[in-house]
Amino acid sequence: MYNNLQAIVLAAGKSSRFISRQSKLIEKICGQEMILYITKLLEKMKIDTTLVIGHKREVIESLVKAHHNNEINFAFQEEQKGTGHAVLCSREFWKKDHILILNGDVPLITEQIINSLFQKHLQNNAVISFVIAHNIDPQMKSYGRVVQNGNSIKIIEAKDETEERKEDFCINAGIYLINKNFLEIAINELYESKVTKELYITDLIEIANIKNQKIETFSVDFDFIRGINTLQELWAVEQIKRAEIIKYWMDCGIRFSTAQNNHIDLNVTIGSGTSIGSGVQIYKNSKIGNNCVIESFSVIDGSIIEDDVVIKSHTLIENSTVKNNCVIGSFTHIHSGSSVDSNSIISNFVEVKKSDIGSGVKIKHLTYIGDSEIGNNVNIGAGTVTCNYNGFKKEKTIIQEDAFIGSNNSLVAPVVIGKGAYTAAGSVITSDVPENSMAIARTEQINKKDYAQVIREKFNDASTLLSMTGAISSSPVILSEVRSTESKDD
Amino acid sequence: MYNNLQAIVLAAGKSSRFISRQSKLIEKICGQEMILYITKLLEKMKIDTTLVIGHKREVIESLVKAHHNNEINFAFQEEQKGTGHAVLCSREFWKKDHILILNGDVPLITEQIINSLFQKHLQNNAVISFVIAHNIDPQMKSYGRVVQNGNSIKIIEAKDETEERKEDFCINAGIYLINKNFLEIAINELYESKVTKELYITDLIEIANIKNQKIETFSVDFDFIRGINTLQELWAVEQIKRAEIIKYWMDCGIRFSTAQNNHIDLNVTIGSGTSIGSGVQIYKNSKIGNNCVIESFSVIDGSIIEDDVVIKSHTLIENSTVKNNCVIGSFTHIHSGSSVDSNSIISNFVEVKKSDIGSGVKIKHLTYIGDSEIGNNVNIGAGTVTCNYNGFKKEKTIIQEDAFIGSNNSLVAPVVIGKGAYTAAGSVITSDVPENSMAIARTEQINKKDYAQVIREKFNDASTLLSMTGAISSSPVILSEVRSTESKDD
Amino acid sequence: MYNNLQAIVLAAGKSSRFISRQSKLIEKICGQEMILYITKLLEKMKIDTTLVIGHKREVIESLVKAHHNNEINFAFQEEQKGTGHAVLCSREFWKKDHILILNGDVPLITEQIINSLFQKHLQNNAVISFVIAHNIDPQMKSYGRVVQNGNSIKIIEAKDETEERKEDFCINAGIYLINKNFLEIAINELYESKVTKELYITDLIEIANIKNQKIETFSVDFDFIRGINTLQELWAVEQIKRAEIIKYWMDCGIRFSTAQNNHIDLNVTIGSGTSIGSGVQIYKNSKIGNNCVIESFSVIDGSIIEDDVVIKSHTLIENSTVKNNCVIGSFTHIHSGSSVDSNSIISNFVEVKKSDIGSGVKIKHLTYIGDSEIGNNVNIGAGTVTCNYNGFKKEKTIIQEDAFIGSNNSLVAPVVIGKGAYTAAGSVITSDVPENSMAIARTEQINKKDYAQVIREKFNDASTLLSMTGAISSSPVILSEVRSTESKDD
Repeated sequence: MYNNLQAIVLAAGKSSRFISRQSKLIEKICGQEMILYITKLLEKMKIDTTLVIGHKREVIESLVKAHHNNEINFAFQEEQKGTGHAVLCSREFWKKDHILILNGDVPLITEQIINSLFQKHLQNNAVISFVIAHNIDPQMKSYGRVVQNGNSIKIIEAKDETEERKEDFCINAGIYLINKNFLEIAINELYESKVTKELYITDLIEIANIKNQKIETFSVDFDFIRGINTLQELWAVEQIKRAEIIKYWMDCGIRFSTAQNNHIDLNVTIGSGTSIGSGVQIYKNSKIGNNCVIESFSVIDGSIIEDDVVIKSHTLIENSTVKNNCVIGSFTHIHSGSSVDSNSIISNFVEVKKSDIGSGVKIKHLTYIGDSEIGNNVNIGAGTVTCNYNGFKKEKTIIQEDAFIGSNNSLVAPVVIGKGAYTAAGSVITSDVPENSMAIARTEQINKKDYAQVIREKFNDASTLLSMTGAISSSPVILSEVRSTESKDD
Repeated sequence: MYNNLQAIVLAAGKSSRFISRQSKLIEKICGQEMILYITKLLEKMKIDTTLVIGHKREVIESLVKAHHNNEINFAFQEEQKGTGHAVLCSREFWKKDHILILNGDVPLITEQIINSLFQKHLQNNAVISFVIAHNIDPQMKSYGRVVQNGNSIKIIEAKDETEERKEDFCINAGIYLINKNFLEIAINELYESKVTKELYITDLIEIANIKNQKIETFSVDFDFIRGINTLQELWAVEQIKRAEIIKYWMDCGIRFSTAQNNHIDLNVTIGSGTSIGSGVQIYKNSKIGNNCVIESFSVIDGSIIEDDVVIKSHTLIENSTVKNNCVIGSFTHIHSGSSVDSNSIISNFVEVKKSDIGSGVKIKHLTYIGDSEIGNNVNIGAGTVTCNYNGFKKEKTIIQEDAFIGSNNSLVAPVVIGKGAYTAAGSVITSDVPENSMAIARTEQINKKDYAQVIREKFNDASTLLSMTGAISSSPVILSEVRSTESKDD
Repeated sequence: MYNNLQAIVLAAGKSSRFISRQSKLIEKICGQEMILYITKLLEKMKIDTTLVIGHKREVIESLVKAHHNNEINFAFQEEQKGTGHAVLCSREFWKKDHILILNGDVPLITEQIINSLFQKHLQNNAVISFVIAHNIDPQMKSYGRVVQNGNSIKIIEAKDETEERKEDFCINAGIYLINKNFLEIAINELYESKVTKELYITDLIEIANIKNQKIETFSVDFDFIRGINTLQELWAVEQIKRAEIIKYWMDCGIRFSTAQNNHIDLNVTIGSGTSIGSGVQIYKNSKIGNNCVIESFSVIDGSIIEDDVVIKSHTLIENSTVKNNCVIGSFTHIHSGSSVDSNSIISNFVEVKKSDIGSGVKIKHLTYIGDSEIGNNVNIGAGTVTCNYNGFKKEKTIIQEDAFIGSNNSLVAPVVIGKGAYTAAGSVITSDVPENSMAIARTEQINKKDYAQVIREKFNDASTLLSMTGAISSSPVILSEVRSTESKDD
């Protein structure tokens, strides 16, 4: 379909208004780098593509190659001498009858626009056709102004514009279709701008005019051809893309309670019947199943969530898998490299890191599970810590099925808690616990009668002060003075 | 006032574009099911109401009954054969002189619109009157187009429309007032659509035209009569409702810092002088007192918060009560069935579940309180866990007033800590502590001189590696090799 | 430049529509009190300023004085008898040839507007000049309507308006420049409104008309002169200010992923290359360095964050300092008065309060550090608590460099852990640990063979029930019945 068409993508310019950032072309929009929106669209349309690169060329080249199996050509523009010069740098790659030239920073352009431009170009036997749009804001200083005068048409680059721009005008989108034969001759006739000393691709229009060649324009909605020269423009484009993605998922049966707050990356998939709460963000290639609930302020990053999972509020899941029917959160952090099997509950102030959790497991409060394997139906008490690091290396904790770990346990890895074993609350488990055994590692309780009174008397004044001021406590201890007495008593 | 008026609500249709969800009519908008917006409005206006149900009839019938003391009639439409057929199915309930027919999916309709339509209908002796609006988006495919031609008026259903719709047209809102006598005759004259084989209520208009009967239209702002056929339309309607609710509370003296991010359910009440932070959501019938502060990203669900309470950021409170002057959060989770008396502080990484907390209590860090009663002025140290579950059943923890629980305690329920008692840091409390006693359950500390050096020498290479790479640690332990040595030493 | 110009700011009115709040003039907009937007603008322009105060006069006077080194005069209006009366109350301060009169509730007014008004006033030899704007909403009831009729011009105060306002009209912004000589005479000619019995400053216009004096108007965009009489208007103004601030920082090279959700106070500074996630809020005079990442739902308040810091999601930092290259969060709370030196990591469910953390420190899980000094390269295990409060006073915990604290430790302050020392997991450290020593305070583990089976048999029925119902556990313990047996065995 596009056999006699090839594309030149201009991707060599400096991103001067992005300050201290790298090339704008590698800034991500809904999880995909800006330049890839163009290259992937052209790949999908099977149009041969050449990128003209210069500023940050290595970064852009390696990014594009990583996503395209080396099918794309790269031309190099050493100095930034204008768009016309950039096109000139790609001369060795001109092969097809028609050459599509476009900027790398218009990620919202569609297949339909390119196709329509091409059809109109062919039907009218134009030597040059280009996309225009109606400007909505005279402050948009980065677009050339298209001036039509009878049969003549020209583009005045913003940088060269002498007069204040009027409220309303037609802009040049920077997307051209040029007859190769015409281009080969006309490119040599470009002259330097008096203002900037650059060669402008836009002067090809005037050259065509002078030669009485056919010029076509194709008008589109401005939103599709928004270029990105500032971080404000980047934000606007991402907003449009984000809205498009969210509308798509709404049409697939996903309910967003406060869609204006959500972020969904381009490559995410979401099953129907799922509800998404306020502020939820879903990144990378995450896959969310059917009939899930993801509550407010949760973030899912590069993870697979199967069907009927409830992710409660303020929960983070990174590069992990959660199977059917689990409940994760609130306030849970599943770190990279973890998996949670079906019907498990992991909740408040619990971290799971590089661990595999079985099915039917409950880990519900204030717990750290790292480098662990947890069998089916294990129950882990509040405040439990797997001590997976000894200062030198990480060790594994294995808790076999049906085991029951008491609260506030420290499980010192490497350690294995056998099937159906119990551990007593407050234990430090340093050696393996056999199947069905009970491990206990704690001291008997002693109640010192009236001792609280003794403490208070010792600190009588302080105590009075305390009760008067209602001082706010932090993390209570027993007084050190008392402590020494205790030691003797023991 | 509306004695000679009754209403037929069409609630039988499939929600085909809601995919995998149940009937759209039970989707909640600001906490109230869509269908109840109509039925409650009609109830408030004391208009006799009949619901025509079909798809998911049981669900809708039981929901409506649960909210209306059985005052509403239900007609059943077995097959989905169009709006005209749905009206026909309600025939046995036609009793009043005038019949208001409207869809169940227009939740933003107001008393004023129905009243004005009725007055105009009466004043003009119309046989049929209906609500129209100006369309703002020609893509809105779900509305019939109203075509006026001299005295004649008709509605072309979107499904039957043959030509591409123009940019701008008048839509039929689907809200009709029909003279009963006319309806009884005209309903028999409805014919099947050639396109869909359905009977359309809209054809009654044409029938009235043919009969030279008086037809009235009443024009309203489109926002009031938005119907909901897609999840996008549901989102739009909820946005409008949400904005209306938030504006109402602003007028009552509540400051919203970032109102566009907040969600407040229909039945929530908020006292004046209260400030609401970014992202805050308040659900169900929550009552917030005067002069409260609710900081960002907190969620209040079905709870009573009294006056002068500060709820800090990232806090969840569910089906619980918090009395005057408390400070709750940041990062606190008060689960269902809890109460917190005045002047208490519950804060970072603390969970409270099915527990009653007294006044002047401090529970400030990394603590789990479940199935507990906490007396006045109790102070609970960081890292404390009430061990309320033994694998078989839940047990209670009672901490009496003025008690002071040391940090990192495990309180093994059932257990009672007496008035004014102390527990030492790190204790596992397994039996009751009498009043004013001090409980201690821990081992004496032993310092092994230069032993850290011994460990390091054993792992000399690893240690060097560690210091060179700055490896990131997780959860430190003491090496197992060393551990065995320790055991011998002890 | 403005030598012959002085300003009278009307700040005496009641904020009746702010309900239960104090004066609207002290409500903050992007972190600065409303009235200070005017007074600081006038100070910057070096225009002598007099505030007319009345309602909540002490609060306003002390606020303004605290920010202005007493350069501002205060006139007192005892009764609220209209704007004309308010101006009259400032009579003793009239000194300059031209008097700028404006309301204290128009915080978005700019230097350019005042300057242009003044220039136009001078050039045209007007006795009175005032700012007008085009009204966008006829519901805006708080603005006077400007009526021009040939050469005559007058303002009809909203309160005195008899007819329904038309859709579109010119409003009086309440910003006047008046010739002092004219004012001195005309002020005596003001008469009471028949409707409100107030004196209106706006009637000066009519008086000038009658006297055939020159009157000038200066038209500006409505957004600049928005007044604030309701909390809705306050919200709208803060939205505009917030957008302005965020656009400014975008131009400085900061990327906001979802700018519509962010809040940045007026006095915050942000280094270029920094990225700001969804919902992030930055308050007071926080300074954020270059190339930082601040992830979603984090709040920075009055803190200094140096370069290359990553603040992960759901993190709070208050009145603290974080140096280069640290990683803070997710779910971290750095309380007031803390500092974290470079290259440290503080993360999930960790609180730091009034503590100084060295460089290269790792505190990664479920830990409370209060009133502590932590040396360089210290590693603190999960679940550790510094027990800094004994019920009477706060004590310090000192952990010297290279120390390694095992998991689930309780460090009972005051206590010093020496350089390079180790503590064993699960220890309660009550006395100092010498350099390079290892401290251990825990009991040896006992494994009771088949004891788990014994427990299960005891609760056989319950156990069966449990496995059948899949009951959800909370915080596991060992049964109290078993517990007593244990005690005997020990």
